[in-house]
Amino acid sequence: MTTINRQWRLKTRPVGAPSTETWDYTETEIPTITDGQLLIKIDYISIDPAMRGWLNDAKSYIKPVQIGEVMRAGTVGEVIESKHEKFAVGDYVAGHDGVQSYAVSDGTGLHKVDPNLAPLPYYLGVLGMPGMTGYFGLLKTGQPKAGETVVVSGAAGAVGSLVGQIAKIKGCRVVGIAGGSEKCKFLVDELGFDATIDYKNENVKKALKQTCPNGVDVYFDNVGGDILNDVLTQINLHARIVICGAISQYNNTEAVKGPSNYLSLLVNRARMEGIVVFDNIKEYPIAMKEIAGWIQSGDIKVKDHIVKGIETFPDTLMMLFNGENFGKLVLKVEE
Amino acid sequence: MTTINRQWRLKTRPVGAPSTETWDYTETEIPTITDGQLLIKIDYISIDPAMRGWLNDAKSYIKPVQIGEVMRAGTVGEVIESKHEKFAVGDYVAGHDGVQSYAVSDGTGLHKVDPNLAPLPYYLGVLGMPGMTGYFGLLKTGQPKAGETVVVSGAAGAVGSLVGQIAKIKGCRVVGIAGGSEKCKFLVDELGFDATIDYKNENVKKALKQTCPNGVDVYFDNVGGDILNDVLTQINLHARIVICGAISQYNNTEAVKGPSNYLSLLVNRARMEGIVVFDNIKEYPIAMKEIAGWIQSGDIKVKDHIVKGIETFPDTLMMLFNGENFGKLVLKVEE
Repeated sequence: MTTINRQWRLKTRPVGAPSTETWDYTETEIPTITDGQLLIKIDYISIDPAMRGWLNDAKSYIKPVQIGEVMRAGTVGEVIESKHEKFAVGDYVAGHDGVQSYAVSDGTGLHKVDPNLAPLPYYLGVLGMPGMTGYFGLLKTGQPKAGETVVVSGAAGAVGSLVGQIAKIKGCRVVGIAGGSEKCKFLVDELGFDATIDYKNENVKKALKQTCPNGVDVYFDNVGGDILNDVLTQINLHARIVICGAISQYNNTEAVKGPSNYLSLLVNRARMEGIVVFDNIKEYPIAMKEIAGWIQSGDIKVKDHIVKGIETFPDTLMMLFNGENFGKLVLKVEE
Repeated sequence: MTTINRQWRLKTRPVGAPSTETWDYTETEIPTITDGQLLIKIDYISIDPAMRGWLNDAKSYIKPVQIGEVMRAGTVGEVIESKHEKFAVGDYVAGHDGVQSYAVSDGTGLHKVDPNLAPLPYYLGVLGMPGMTGYFGLLKTGQPKAGETVVVSGAAGAVGSLVGQIAKIKGCRVVGIAGGSEKCKFLVDELGFDATIDYKNENVKKALKQTCPNGVDVYFDNVGGDILNDVLTQINLHARIVICGAISQYNNTEAVKGPSNYLSLLVNRARMEGIVVFDNIKEYPIAMKEIAGWIQSGDIKVKDHIVKGIETFPDTLMMLFNGENFGKLVLKVEE
């Protein structure tokens, strides 16, 4: 076994898009664990849009990653040493243990996962943070009712693809906004979306009118910017807009683009509400069980996009912002 | 008695601020009423920010005023002829009977008011549409709890001054945003606001930090634009933003300014929701009774700004957008 821990650390806070300047690649000795600790060999690292926010030195729902610190990330791996009473060698665990090949943990934020129940990467996606985000964001905040029209942006991503599929299960008409004909075809043919809008090749506002002839009741927003603004022109009375993210705006060097059509909220007595997944942590088990059931029954299909090699981390992260991932983006530590 | 009805009609739809080009002043014979109709001598006409929206040829919560039509407005007046079984000569009635000195009505949207219970202009303000807007917008959508901080813009206006006073009754810390030291002094000294921000002479963001040391839990927005955007930087977890209006944006010739800080809704799991008063019409009597009680007990004070002479209508309307009114703006038909 190697004694080297490969790590990506925050070197400088990016202005705009992260670049090679943002990161330091370091190799250190794997530390020795003490009582109450365990050592995890990380197999998969989750690559999520939220990571961009964690790089900003701003008050937010979670403290920023510090300069010199190993980059925060969701992880899943195997316990290979343990002096912790709750975890044994051979256990598989999911947590937030960072962009590194090994992690020492005192168990905080860790939970055991079963690799026989689902492939390990699922615990970073549909059964992990993105899954919980989509589940609670749509059901609690979006409150879709059968027969309503649900629109979701970033529809081919980890959160969006789950949101659309849950909305279908709930009896809604579902329209996904994604970039490129391949993703759009997948959403309709494989995931059962009713229609899609290819924002890279279509006029979104026109396409919304065509694909949502009865207007939009729930909009689950992962992208912000012009697409949010266009959807606001098509919402129905008492529509719910779930603000989950704004990936189009995260690497802005200028101010975020505010939705100039926000007065549509007034005209339509509609609501725009932000969500943060961690607020639902006590209910995660309920959601995981229900989603796992839908996967088993075939109602929910999962698409992972796995990139191999921890050394690719900076480029792999950028795939998110360039819309190059197709499904839940996961970094496999070993090539 | 005169036989002439003086009326202001929409001549052309304004681009930007209404001007003399917007209106036609006409004099016609007062029509003869037929069975089921009544004739109202209008005493007071309500001048409200919402009127600007009614001039736009756009899909909204109410159909636009048509070219050539008498301008829509809230009114209160006396029945001087009646062939309607529910209304008798001498009744005082409130309704939406337009910017004119006499109106023929079939009773639609009319309700009787008691001039002995409250001065007639109150039925256009605190006991009329603005009162209902403030009452339901704050209590139903804002949901203020004792000890929370409530910020209201347009605080010296008809809606804002009521919102602040109701929030005080509910045990909140109340901060009003208004233009000019005279209005600000009035809000604190006469209406019991805890603090004010004079947006014409203060940096709103800085002043919010000073006057809301515990952050903002409820923001009742009548103005939009930069002030909404500044408040978004100061909201607390689970804050509620009530979108009632955006008077700063109504006469824009360019696109409305969207709130670029809207992602604060995400970070704070906060909500921004639009309201339209007419949705609560069935509950108006409950609200009117409660507000009347508060007026009697002295918990709510009323300030009207009455301008005399229907001929001043175009200039009087512009007072709203220039922030020149101080209290509920009402046009008295006769000089």
